[in-house]
Amino acid sequence: MSKEQVKRDPAVQRWKCVCAYDGTSFAGWQSQQGGGAIQDVIEAQLATMFGGLVRINASGRTDARVHAHGQVFHFDAAWKHGPEKLRAALRSKLPASIQIKSIRAVSPEFHSRFSAKGKIYVYNIFLGDADPFTRPFAWAIGRPLDLEAMKAATLVLRGKHDFRAFSALNGPPKDDTVRDLRRFELVRRGLRVRITAEADGFMYKMVRSLVGALVSVGEGNLSAAQLKAILVSGKRTPLVQTAPPQGLFLVKVLYR
Amino acid sequence: MSKEQVKRDPAVQRWKCVCAYDGTSFAGWQSQQGGGAIQDVIEAQLATMFGGLVRINASGRTDARVHAHGQVFHFDAAWKHGPEKLRAALRSKLPASIQIKSIRAVSPEFHSRFSAKGKIYVYNIFLGDADPFTRPFAWAIGRPLDLEAMKAATLVLRGKHDFRAFSALNGPPKDDTVRDLRRFELVRRGLRVRITAEADGFMYKMVRSLVGALVSVGEGNLSAAQLKAILVSGKRTPLVQTAPPQGLFLVKVLYR
Repeated sequence: MSKEQVKRDPAVQRWKCVCAYDGTSFAGWQSQQGGGAIQDVIEAQLATMFGGLVRINASGRTDARVHAHGQVFHFDAAWKHGPEKLRAALRSKLPASIQIKSIRAVSPEFHSRFSAKGKIYVYNIFLGDADPFTRPFAWAIGRPLDLEAMKAATLVLRGKHDFRAFSALNGPPKDDTVRDLRRFELVRRGLRVRITAEADGFMYKMVRSLVGALVSVGEGNLSAAQLKAILVSGKRTPLVQTAPPQGLFLVKVLYR
Repeated sequence: MSKEQVKRDPAVQRWKCVCAYDGTSFAGWQSQQGGGAIQDVIEAQLATMFGGLVRINASGRTDARVHAHGQVFHFDAAWKHGPEKLRAALRSKLPASIQIKSIRAVSPEFHSRFSAKGKIYVYNIFLGDADPFTRPFAWAIGRPLDLEAMKAATLVLRGKHDFRAFSALNGPPKDDTVRDLRRFELVRRGLRVRITAEADGFMYKMVRSLVGALVSVGEGNLSAAQLKAILVSGKRTPLVQTAPPQGLFLVKVLYR
């Protein structure tokens, strides 16, 4: 089948892809002028395969240096050779830092962003001087942290709240900023601290703001009572720092 | 103290450094024309600190994409502010992929290469399709491997032997190619297989050749008896493949 036939083929299907990436050397997920974003790299490969632009839609963007174990995107294309060959063709020319984990045909009603029912993120903290194999994947903190206070603070934030104070929004309230933080927990293993956050959705920079606030608590710069007051106020304060991007992993996008 | 004073200072000391590096983006350890080697990057920083070339000597070179948890190098320089400040100054401008783990003054008789009594390497194999976080640090093998046969094969190679058949040497025998492979073991954890090799010294590409031979055994292309015959023959054969560099880590250099 020639590329011309593929292009004219009316049997366009919607394909759902799960991918993983090491975000270290990319300008984030979202397409950039001049390329360099993960979306650009994948779309370039699809353009080669299909002989023209194939736009991909992700569950959401991730910032530069943020990683993914399970980002989801979809695209529409006519492909008659089955999902395994599509996956093989798509992955064949991608850099090792992007992995196509699975691909399958879905209903045309499926939308990677609008059909999502939730997301799971993990944020890694390393206590001390991280080695070169850990540094691109964690926030290395040399100062002592009160992990018990941080654990207690997760309980303040867990649940359904207006998280506007932990978003990057400024200006008058208008968006719906209520989210259900169904899971927010901190586990220590040796020098590694893993914070898991699951919600029906996250605002831009919300996970990194929640983690930044937890670390402020751990450093003794913020009490649980102050944290609660910030949450209720709906106003961002400098006490809520934004954790650096390299510790953040989009682990899973949840669908019905 | 100005740089001129440092340069004229007769109190030159020998400094021993332990460093870790992610070798993915470097042209190996050894200085290259045009830079790009780990040695070049460290020497450039020392040149800035001391106002002139400070040559560093490592325990041995590592190839492009080979990593280190504990490479050792030494250099001679006059520095009066103690090892911690020397470490801080040296590491301050190095990329995140190179970490200076420790630094201390040693006797002028110490030599990172000639004083070494042995080395420990680890080689990582990943069984299956490695994700972007594992691929730069392991040999991903999709074919089934007979790990019990590989374990048995480690016993054939362990011990004091002429390892010429597992070196990159060609031409008539002249070098001393006898090494004492004191430890050579394979441990599986889930999809990860870790091979540890410790000897009084290793020839160029020896670890990767030993691992390549083990994998040939695991693939059923080489029997333990054939492996023994190759070892005894002292002649390299195509059955001894060279494992790819990215799975290899120099873990520790041993000194008395």
